[in-house]
Amino acid sequence: MSALSRRILPLLDRVLVEKIVPKKTTPAGVLLPESATAKALNEGKVVAVGPGSYTREGQVLPVSCKVGDTVLLPEFGGTQIKLDGKDFMIYRDDEILAKLE
Amino acid sequence: MSALSRRILPLLDRVLVEKIVPKKTTPAGVLLPESATAKALNEGKVVAVGPGSYTREGQVLPVSCKVGDTVLLPEFGGTQIKLDGKDFMIYRDDEILAKLE
Amino acid sequence: MSALSRRILPLLDRVLVEKIVPKKTTPAGVLLPESATAKALNEGKVVAVGPGSYTREGQVLPVSCKVGDTVLLPEFGGTQIKLDGKDFMIYRDDEILAKLE
Amino acid sequence: MSALSRRILPLLDRVLVEKIVPKKTTPAGVLLPESATAKALNEGKVVAVGPGSYTREGQVLPVSCKVGDTVLLPEFGGTQIKLDGKDFMIYRDDEILAKLE
Amino acid sequence: MSALSRRILPLLDRVLVEKIVPKKTTPAGVLLPESATAKALNEGKVVAVGPGSYTREGQVLPVSCKVGDTVLLPEFGGTQIKLDGKDFMIYRDDEILAKLE
Amino acid sequence: MSALSRRILPLLDRVLVEKIVPKKTTPAGVLLPESATAKALNEGKVVAVGPGSYTREGQVLPVSCKVGDTVLLPEFGGTQIKLDGKDFMIYRDDEILAKLE
Amino acid sequence: MSALSRRILPLLDRVLVEKIVPKKTTPAGVLLPESATAKALNEGKVVAVGPGSYTREGQVLPVSCKVGDTVLLPEFGGTQIKLDGKDFMIYRDDEILAKLE
Repeated sequence: MSALSRRILPLLDRVLVEKIVPKKTTPAGVLLPESATAKALNEGKVVAVGPGSYTREGQVLPVSCKVGDTVLLPEFGGTQIKLDGKDFMIYRDDEILAKLE
Repeated sequence: MSALSRRILPLLDRVLVEKIVPKKTTPAGVLLPESATAKALNEGKVVAVGPGSYTREGQVLPVSCKVGDTVLLPEFGGTQIKLDGKDFMIYRDDEILAKLE
Repeated sequence: MSALSRRILPLLDRVLVEKIVPKKTTPAGVLLPESATAKALNEGKVVAVGPGSYTREGQVLPVSCKVGDTVLLPEFGGTQIKLDGKDFMIYRDDEILAKLE
Repeated sequence: MSALSRRILPLLDRVLVEKIVPKKTTPAGVLLPESATAKALNEGKVVAVGPGSYTREGQVLPVSCKVGDTVLLPEFGGTQIKLDGKDFMIYRDDEILAKLE
Repeated sequence: MSALSRRILPLLDRVLVEKIVPKKTTPAGVLLPESATAKALNEGKVVAVGPGSYTREGQVLPVSCKVGDTVLLPEFGGTQIKLDGKDFMIYRDDEILAKLE
Repeated sequence: MSALSRRILPLLDRVLVEKIVPKKTTPAGVLLPESATAKALNEGKVVAVGPGSYTREGQVLPVSCKVGDTVLLPEFGGTQIKLDGKDFMIYRDDEILAKLE
Repeated sequence: MSALSRRILPLLDRVLVEKIVPKKTTPAGVLLPESATAKALNEGKVVAVGPGSYTREGQVLPVSCKVGDTVLLPEFGGTQIKLDGKDFMIYRDDEILAKLE
């Protein structure tokens, strides 16, 4: 992932994710049918994570995913950010559904 | 259950369930009446579980069902996922009603 | 209560109740007036209970009714389940109003 | 209060109250004006109480009224129950406004 | 304040207040303009207080006003009660704005 | 600030603030344009503060501003009070945005 | 940042941010297309921070950004303040998305 013009450091339990846009064509350049891209998973790459959130007693709860993870994103929620022409989303750690391997 | 093309690792207290689609025909191939399939339980097979959720003091509360369990699913809620042509749902542990034996 | 084709094991603080349907006729077979059945209590028999819910510190709080209890059910809430032609409901322990003796 | 055909044992912090219906006539049988009954307090007699509710740490908090108390009821809330031709209500302890002496 | 026909003992953190109705005439009997009464403070006299509310750990938190205090009442909320022709209100301790001296 | 006819003692974590009405004319009496007063900060002077609110364990959390502070008020919320022809507001400590020096 | 006519000291966990208005022209004075400014990040400079918020046990949780930080602001929320012709916003620490480097 090429370096960004500026570094975004999420606060508290937030996670910065670069959306993975499903490919529209096969490696050979053949256009994929609409149905194929529609069924692609809503996923993204973790670019940066916050320090974590506080418990009621002031302890820090670490975020459950780390930079480089591929994660499964929820249908709704998150804040959209455009930087250097790329699509990023900021979620709370608790909104992210799963890791993908 | 044949291996999936990708592994989905639920985060926190989430549970990945593969929906059990009620059979439409008898083993001998006779079509079952609509009423039979309508009354089938809304159930699924647990495919993967998260590490659990945090209590306020930062302790981890384990998820109450485990991989391989057959579980009774709520009417609403959960996030739908399609992978390798199969229907999966992701629920919070707290949404799942019961185990079925 | 005849054995069910499958065992339903409620999770967390849930309670499985078989609804008690008010009799429509007297023991001698005489049809009871509509008003009689309308005034019958909304009650059921506890068939299975979950292990209980967690306190914030991760302790388990046991469910307050046990298998075999006859209980007074709330007007709303609960999840309906049909199994072997019988009507069951799953409630949270906290939704059940009272025991009936 | 004549014994009921069945005993209702409220669960958790619930309170079973028999509604006190304001008298429509004077002891001598003279019909009271509508305005008199309209101004009567919304009160009831405590018939049974639950064991109490749990604090977050699993301690039991006793209910604040006891069997035999006359209590002032809120305008809304509670669950209505008819048994042996009498009107009962089930409230949470926290809904009941005051004791009346 | 003349004794009431019945004693009202608020439960938990509730406070029983007798509303102070702004005078419509001067001591000499001259009718006050509407604007004067409209600007009167919404106040009342504390007649009885409950024992207090429970903290999560089951400790009792005392109510912050006492019998005899003149208090400033919120615009909304509270439950209205008429007894012996007088207007009373029951509030939660937390709803009462201030003491007036 | 001239003494009020009556003392208002806020309860719990409430703060009594006298609104600072933006001047309409310059010291020399010249009328200020509407736009000038429109841009004035929504501020007030703290006249009295409550003892503070309780934590869950019954500890008292002191209010974060003190008598004499000039404070920045939120656009909404608070309860309006008129006394001796002056405009007062009662806020919860948590609603007040900032101190102004 | 030139000194303000008055100092604003945020209370509790609030953060005072001066909005960074995206430049409309290039350094040479050429007008930038609407699309360029539309894609600018919603950011601001931290001017002052509060002492922090209280945990349930009365501990102070410090604010997670400090004076001089450039921060990424949420689309909604915050309170707008105009002072000395400049645009400021007051947010809760928890509303601010990330730091920008």
